[in-house]
Amino acid sequence: MSSPTSSFSSGLAGITAGETSISAAGGDHDLDYRGYAIEDLTRDTCFEEVAHLLIHGHLPNKSELDDYKARLISLRILPDELAHVLKAIPKSCHPMNMLQTATCYLGTIEAETNPLADDGQTSKALADRLVALYPSIIAYWWRYHFEKDKAPDLSSDQDTIAAYFLDVLLQKKPIDLHVAGINVSLILYAEHEFNASTFTSRIIASTYSDFYSSVSGAIGALRGPLHGGANEAAMDLIAKFKTPEDARIGIASMLRNKELIMGFGHRVYKSGDPRNKIIKKWSKMLCKEGDNEKLYRVSEAIEHMMFDEKRLFPNLDFYSASSYNMMNIPTPLFTPVFVMSRITGWAAHIIEQRQNNKLIRPNSHYVGPERKEFVPLDQR
Amino acid sequence: MSSPTSSFSSGLAGITAGETSISAAGGDHDLDYRGYAIEDLTRDTCFEEVAHLLIHGHLPNKSELDDYKARLISLRILPDELAHVLKAIPKSCHPMNMLQTATCYLGTIEAETNPLADDGQTSKALADRLVALYPSIIAYWWRYHFEKDKAPDLSSDQDTIAAYFLDVLLQKKPIDLHVAGINVSLILYAEHEFNASTFTSRIIASTYSDFYSSVSGAIGALRGPLHGGANEAAMDLIAKFKTPEDARIGIASMLRNKELIMGFGHRVYKSGDPRNKIIKKWSKMLCKEGDNEKLYRVSEAIEHMMFDEKRLFPNLDFYSASSYNMMNIPTPLFTPVFVMSRITGWAAHIIEQRQNNKLIRPNSHYVGPERKEFVPLDQR
Repeated sequence: MSSPTSSFSSGLAGITAGETSISAAGGDHDLDYRGYAIEDLTRDTCFEEVAHLLIHGHLPNKSELDDYKARLISLRILPDELAHVLKAIPKSCHPMNMLQTATCYLGTIEAETNPLADDGQTSKALADRLVALYPSIIAYWWRYHFEKDKAPDLSSDQDTIAAYFLDVLLQKKPIDLHVAGINVSLILYAEHEFNASTFTSRIIASTYSDFYSSVSGAIGALRGPLHGGANEAAMDLIAKFKTPEDARIGIASMLRNKELIMGFGHRVYKSGDPRNKIIKKWSKMLCKEGDNEKLYRVSEAIEHMMFDEKRLFPNLDFYSASSYNMMNIPTPLFTPVFVMSRITGWAAHIIEQRQNNKLIRPNSHYVGPERKEFVPLDQR
Repeated sequence: MSSPTSSFSSGLAGITAGETSISAAGGDHDLDYRGYAIEDLTRDTCFEEVAHLLIHGHLPNKSELDDYKARLISLRILPDELAHVLKAIPKSCHPMNMLQTATCYLGTIEAETNPLADDGQTSKALADRLVALYPSIIAYWWRYHFEKDKAPDLSSDQDTIAAYFLDVLLQKKPIDLHVAGINVSLILYAEHEFNASTFTSRIIASTYSDFYSSVSGAIGALRGPLHGGANEAAMDLIAKFKTPEDARIGIASMLRNKELIMGFGHRVYKSGDPRNKIIKKWSKMLCKEGDNEKLYRVSEAIEHMMFDEKRLFPNLDFYSASSYNMMNIPTPLFTPVFVMSRITGWAAHIIEQRQNNKLIRPNSHYVGPERKEFVPLDQR
């Protein structure tokens, strides 16, 4: 307990909680992953290159990338035991709870037995396994429940995570623009220093708990609408409006009623999210290709209202919503797709935390009752 | 990202991360739960009273306690779907991973659908469900795998959590001293302000994620040997030594080799853990009753060595180890028993966090490479 006079910053806002060499966000940087600007990384790079950069520390050359892609393909096969448990997870649940359960369960069948002995190789191997498996887990569970398919067939000749995911989820060879769109989105979502889910993964790792425990805790944090759940919440909002004019009226009414509107503002960025201009461009292209420019215009109307009325800018989640929608991803799977990406950042932070570990354990400021006399049960 | 010149406290040591009215530890207090000293709460109180104090805000009177106990008994019945998944969790895994999986899975079959709408009643009901279920989950999974019992029978006429747990786990009517010992241990472990697992649960709750996500993240953090896993690690250590003299020689050697020794020291307490003097007294009684005073003497020899050599005092975990051992709890279940207790503190903190929520999201200090020129794949 801290002294009664101590001051503190609510929500740790503006408090530096540790060092990282994985990404730099805000300040002099827009957003860099290990020194590379996201503008560069989203131009013509595949997600596997960025996963390699984050988990294995450097951008792979051609031969390393070929090896890495081959390894991820070999790791994407769902274990039978996990398929058995996925079938027991009801259709009615939120897919993020499904993904968290799957992660925890994997920690019981492919356990990390001694986190204290990890020199980085174990956690990197576990990270690759999860990067490879998440698309399979999501597609298997979704198709099993929503198409009454007893054992979804996940075979695919697609050799990238982006294309494989669309292929096995939607059971249709994806068009190039959609593969590129998912790719860019996975890269943009991959890493963002001490956000709530990543910080959660580091706290759990700091007790020397196992890799799966850290990741499943992070999934729990990402689920919330003030964090990763915002992309799903943004889509639910956008879908309410048929026209830009509808949107303006609807948002004005929500603001009057002080309703929470997700997908705007950011703790780190004060004048705009550098990822937004990239995903917004993709949203425009995807809406145009899919002949749904109205969706883009409704989104833009909401953006303008939020700026005019609240001086808030869209964060990455807002135009991710329309982008995912145009690539035919069901709305409840938006945040799980975020997991497919952010697992790379979480893994990098767990590895970094273990390299120079100190238990993360703050103090609290006690504001409860003073010491009371205890009254035994028979006198209460 | 913070400015390059910012300083910070590693592991948030000494940093106040928020307010709480649930417990006060250290400073002028030894340890109080909502104003009541733990010395008073462990004298003649049952765990259900303390669970009620933490979750529902006050010590129950006789009639409230009777109602609460009856409710917990009605809530301790394992759902068939959960039993099905427990059977699929292998014997080889760490029971904390099992318990985390069970918690996540419960979040898919008994979901909290709208955390934003919780006025405290939902989270209190979910907390009571988990308080009631954890003893059943642990006993069912353990017995299913370790006694080749196809469907363990958890029926019991015991009306307290402490007695029910010992009864269904060990399948033998527990003696009064053991029931009282578990009871005291559950009360001592129930709550400890912003420890790593509780802080994890608050971060997850701060994104407006669901109750189960918060709790399963906390279980992940508690598993680590720098946190709850210390009681299991302490037992593994104590079990290595046959005599006090053995222990002195062994500990001296471990200290020379700079091996981690769990169960000593504490981030909050600088001159002794107030819970230790209580659990140490119980360890002594339990070892005497079980005719294994050697276990107590070996533990005390380790305690003295750690103080003489490192000026470190035992924390709650250290004498919990010998206490649990004497009550015939298998060592791998020591940390799960901690969960049976700490779920009450986690729940109180999730409820408190939701009452006055602000996203918990710190900054990081970037120490990675400066901006690099991006080299396309074909030129790497």
